[in-house]
Amino acid sequence: MLLLIPGPVTTRPEVRQAMTQDHAPWDNAFRPLYASVRERVLAIAGGVPGTHASLALQGCGHFATEAAVRTFVPPGGRILIPATGSYADRMARLAREAGRVVVPLTVAQTEPVSPAVVAAALAADPTISHVGLVYSETSSGVIHDAIAIGEAVRAAGRRLILDAVSAFGALPLDISAQPEMDVAVFTTNKCLEGLPGLSFAVARVDSLTGAVGNAGSWSFDLADIYAHALRSGWGSFRFTPPAQVLAAFQTALDFFDVEGGQAARLARYTANARTLYDGMLSLGLEPCLARDVQGPIVMNVHAPSDPAWSLQAFVDALKEAGFVISNFYNTEYPSFRVGCIGAVTPGDMQRFISAVDQVLVRLGIKNRSASRQAA
Amino acid sequence: MLLLIPGPVTTRPEVRQAMTQDHAPWDNAFRPLYASVRERVLAIAGGVPGTHASLALQGCGHFATEAAVRTFVPPGGRILIPATGSYADRMARLAREAGRVVVPLTVAQTEPVSPAVVAAALAADPTISHVGLVYSETSSGVIHDAIAIGEAVRAAGRRLILDAVSAFGALPLDISAQPEMDVAVFTTNKCLEGLPGLSFAVARVDSLTGAVGNAGSWSFDLADIYAHALRSGWGSFRFTPPAQVLAAFQTALDFFDVEGGQAARLARYTANARTLYDGMLSLGLEPCLARDVQGPIVMNVHAPSDPAWSLQAFVDALKEAGFVISNFYNTEYPSFRVGCIGAVTPGDMQRFISAVDQVLVRLGIKNRSASRQAA
Ligand SMILES: Cc1ncc(COP(=O)(O)O)c(C=O)c1O
Ligand SMILES: Cc1ncc(COP(=O)(O)O)c(C=O)c1O
Repeated sequence: MLLLIPGPVTTRPEVRQAMTQDHAPWDNAFRPLYASVRERVLAIAGGVPGTHASLALQGCGHFATEAAVRTFVPPGGRILIPATGSYADRMARLAREAGRVVVPLTVAQTEPVSPAVVAAALAADPTISHVGLVYSETSSGVIHDAIAIGEAVRAAGRRLILDAVSAFGALPLDISAQPEMDVAVFTTNKCLEGLPGLSFAVARVDSLTGAVGNAGSWSFDLADIYAHALRSGWGSFRFTPPAQVLAAFQTALDFFDVEGGQAARLARYTANARTLYDGMLSLGLEPCLARDVQGPIVMNVHAPSDPAWSLQAFVDALKEAGFVISNFYNTEYPSFRVGCIGAVTPGDMQRFISAVDQVLVRLGIKNRSASRQAA
Repeated sequence: MLLLIPGPVTTRPEVRQAMTQDHAPWDNAFRPLYASVRERVLAIAGGVPGTHASLALQGCGHFATEAAVRTFVPPGGRILIPATGSYADRMARLAREAGRVVVPLTVAQTEPVSPAVVAAALAADPTISHVGLVYSETSSGVIHDAIAIGEAVRAAGRRLILDAVSAFGALPLDISAQPEMDVAVFTTNKCLEGLPGLSFAVARVDSLTGAVGNAGSWSFDLADIYAHALRSGWGSFRFTPPAQVLAAFQTALDFFDVEGGQAARLARYTANARTLYDGMLSLGLEPCLARDVQGPIVMNVHAPSDPAWSLQAFVDALKEAGFVISNFYNTEYPSFRVGCIGAVTPGDMQRFISAVDQVLVRLGIKNRSASRQAA
């Protein structure tokens, strides 16, 4: 069974097998595991030890995003969040409920955010301290230009918080080249091909030490996680970690290195996405995004306008053929979505395309062309 | 290698093996797993569907405690926390950093909290809305009487938040018989013998619906987790769950049932603790608590006063013999601590006692009697 969803992704059996040991997380034998994972993550982010710190947080990506916002945007502070899709909305909700003021910026969700628009919004409101950007907007499949937006933020003298949850490990990130970036957050279970249960923040040390007292939550205080890491010699968690998830992540990072790191992973995912895009077209199906804005992480495809179409029936039939896709859609019109990430190859994508073809026939769907009518 | 620490505990290989599948957490195939685990947890807590809800939260026990305090104690509200030890201190810190007012109550840490003392503190301060109690104080090994304290809370017309992290599954809990209890929190990786990465809250539905808007954190809002669960037909998480940890937990609950549930588990842990207590005495070592207050979860033992004593050397030598104990201690005087929980039996405890004996000889420790001098 292959998961073709944008996380949790299909993992290698060796990665899952690495979860079958008990661990005592405060024991000396466990410390090198945490320390080495943290160093490897820092390197992938382009962080420099001493200037940047990589910090792990128990739980999911939302938690890391809330922790980032709480830690770096002071209570009552103002953050500009380009409304790129569901994950930008989620960052906005996390920030608002934490008592930060979200300045919304409406943008087209089917194309990358324009740096000029961000620059104008910042120029218009000098009270905004931060911009919160979703690097890979998982709801649309669009990749936003973290470097160009970062330049606009830097030029305006503001700070950047990057949600790299569905980007990190595949899309390039060099936090050292982007001094405006307080923090980038991500999880183990997307492009790094680990299992879910742990998130990470790579943050500037000067930002962390300047953020003491901001968080209003001990659990989500990245400055405290940093202080604890320093005190404990970098090898220990504050609270019980998901030790098996961490062990699996280490194995996942081994495969990441063997593959050739971020560039190789991006190349494979890009090949997956291209294969899928061409395959959908060849079946008479229509991807929702133009080819030049379609990112390599996840693809939305218009639902066939045939009256026999049922997303759940389609999902169920694909599962019988060995593929799990999402049983919901994020677009305003009916669509289905397919993840291009995880331990899957263009060959897997080809098999998936054949399975889609057979399933559409089996479900009696004759008209495969797109419908843009609302559901 | 056996972990004799108070969590994460030694688990059965079958439990760990249950982690080796990929899961798509929003797929229909995954929903029954979450729903059934939630029902089973509710039943273990004595909850009644409709009156109580069992809710899962990604991450660790601290997160569940913070979520409980945020959800049920309104911002600026006052919570009385008997200072039973480190975990009470941790609840206090979580509450304070979340902007709740902690009313401290100093108590002896080597005996159960007196209900009369709690009653007096509540009578003296009518502005206190909640009491936060640690059921099994993992730093001391003392079990506090959640029923008797609950009666005092109920009589005073206040509400109880119970940290049952190192108690749940072994110590009795009947939340239906304690209407003053808004919530009990716990994790997968202690007395239920699962792996770490997921926590639970069993809460009153009327308390949850009355707590909407309190949390000041979307991530930690139990009222929102409840509302989402209702909306989604109880089968879906808000955010990516640690799916493998949940699957392992289901297998752990199967073993819990086969063993005979909470009563049988308590009997085994009690036998473990009794074996350990007697064994320590037989070796000339002195447990820190009197026998009648020593709980069945974790035991602190006075460090030998011999100058050759080194906790780390002791821990390392025991590890060579196949046992992992904590490499830190929680008492004011030197001690070592041994967990009595997890997939271990009195026979394992006997083997451990022999190992301790041999290790003390090997390390040249001649005087095994207690030292009460500060470290
Ligand atoms: C871009 C992005 N941000 C944040 C998240 C939230 O992560 P999690 O579901 O682990 O909380 C996701 C999850 O899909 C995501 O794709
Ligand atoms: C009584 C008690 N409360 C809370 C916690 C915190 O749990 P975690 O370490 O999973 O955050 C623990 C952990 O040992 C505990 O024993």
